[in-house]
Amino acid sequence: MARWEPNAPERLERAALALFTEQGYDATTVVQISERAGLTKSTFFRHFADKREVLSGRQGLLAERFGSAIRDAPAAATPAACLAAALESAAPGFTPDRHDLAVQRLAIVAAHSKLRERELLKLAGLATAVADALQAHGTEETTARLAAEIGVLAFTLTISRWAAPENEQPYTEIARTTLADLCARAATLDA
Amino acid sequence: MARWEPNAPERLERAALALFTEQGYDATTVVQISERAGLTKSTFFRHFADKREVLSGRQGLLAERFGSAIRDAPAAATPAACLAAALESAAPGFTPDRHDLAVQRLAIVAAHSKLRERELLKLAGLATAVADALQAHGTEETTARLAAEIGVLAFTLTISRWAAPENEQPYTEIARTTLADLCARAATLDA
Repeated sequence: MARWEPNAPERLERAALALFTEQGYDATTVVQISERAGLTKSTFFRHFADKREVLSGRQGLLAERFGSAIRDAPAAATPAACLAAALESAAPGFTPDRHDLAVQRLAIVAAHSKLRERELLKLAGLATAVADALQAHGTEETTARLAAEIGVLAFTLTISRWAAPENEQPYTEIARTTLADLCARAATLDA
Repeated sequence: MARWEPNAPERLERAALALFTEQGYDATTVVQISERAGLTKSTFFRHFADKREVLSGRQGLLAERFGSAIRDAPAAATPAACLAAALESAAPGFTPDRHDLAVQRLAIVAAHSKLRERELLKLAGLATAVADALQAHGTEETTARLAAEIGVLAFTLTISRWAAPENEQPYTEIARTTLADLCARAATLDA
C-alpha cells in the first residue's frame, strides 16, 4: 500500500539532480534515484512519469501560475504589469535553498540536445499560456503574443542570472529589473 | 546513374503537399511522392532525408538567408532595420505561385503535433541564428535576443497573413507592415 512520504517530490528531485551531476543523465535509472532519496520506485512513479519529467515537471506548474497571475491582475494593469505579476508568481520555485538545484538543472539540460529540445517546447507552451491569459485579461491578440514572447525571454534571462553560481540577488528583484530592462530596450529597436 | 532533373525539389514538394492534403501525412510514402512527381526514389533522397524534411527543409535555408541579410546590412542599420532586411531576404520563397503550397503546408503542420513540435524547434533555431547575426552586426547581446524574438514573431505572423486563402497582398508588403506594427506595439507595453 502507498504510504505518505513527506516532501517526496523535492527529495526525488534532489536525488535525481545529484545523480545526473555525478554520473550523467543517461547512466542514471529511476531505481537509483528512488534509492538515493530513500523512497520506493512506486513512490517515484506517483510523482513523475519518468526521469526526464523530474527536470521538466515544474514547467507545467509554471504555465498555470503565470496564467492565474495574469488573469487575476487588476483590470487596469498594462501588459507589462501583467508580465511582472506572472514572473513574480514563480518566486516560490526560486528560493535560496533551491539555488543549487537550479545550477545543476541548467548544466544538465545544456549538455543534452534532447533535453534542450524539450525545454524549448516547454517554453513555447509557456508563451502560448501567457498569450492566452493576456487575451483573457483584455489584451488584443497580436500585442498579447508579442508581450508573451518578451515575458518568456524575461523569465529565461532571469533564471540564468539568478542561477549564476556567484549570484546572491533574490529572484523577484532580478525578475523585476530584467523585465523593465527588456521593455525599455523594446521601445528603442528602431533607434 | 543519377540524372539531372530540372526543378526536382519543387516538383517533389508539390507532389508531397498534394498527397499529404489528399490522403493524409501519415498515409503518404516517399515512393508515392516520387511517383507523383515523375521522379525516382533515389532522386527524392538526393534532396530530402525523409518526407518530414519536405515540410521543414526550407527552414535551414531561411536561417542562412536571415543571417546573411543581417550581417550584410549597413553598419548604421538599427536592429529593426536589420530585421526588415532579414524578412525581405525570404521573399523568394513566398511568391504568388507558391501561395497554394503555403496554404497546404500550414494546414498539414497544424494537424500534426509532431510536425508542430518540429516547427517550433526550427523557429527557435531561427531566433538563435538571428540573435547571433545581430550580435555579429554590433547589437548588444540582450537587445539581439529580444529583437530576434520579435523578428521571428513578425515572420510567423507574416506567413500566416500571407498564406490566408483570401490574401492578395505581396509578402514583402505584409512583412514590412507587420514588423513596423510589432515594433510600435513593443514600445507601448507599459502604457
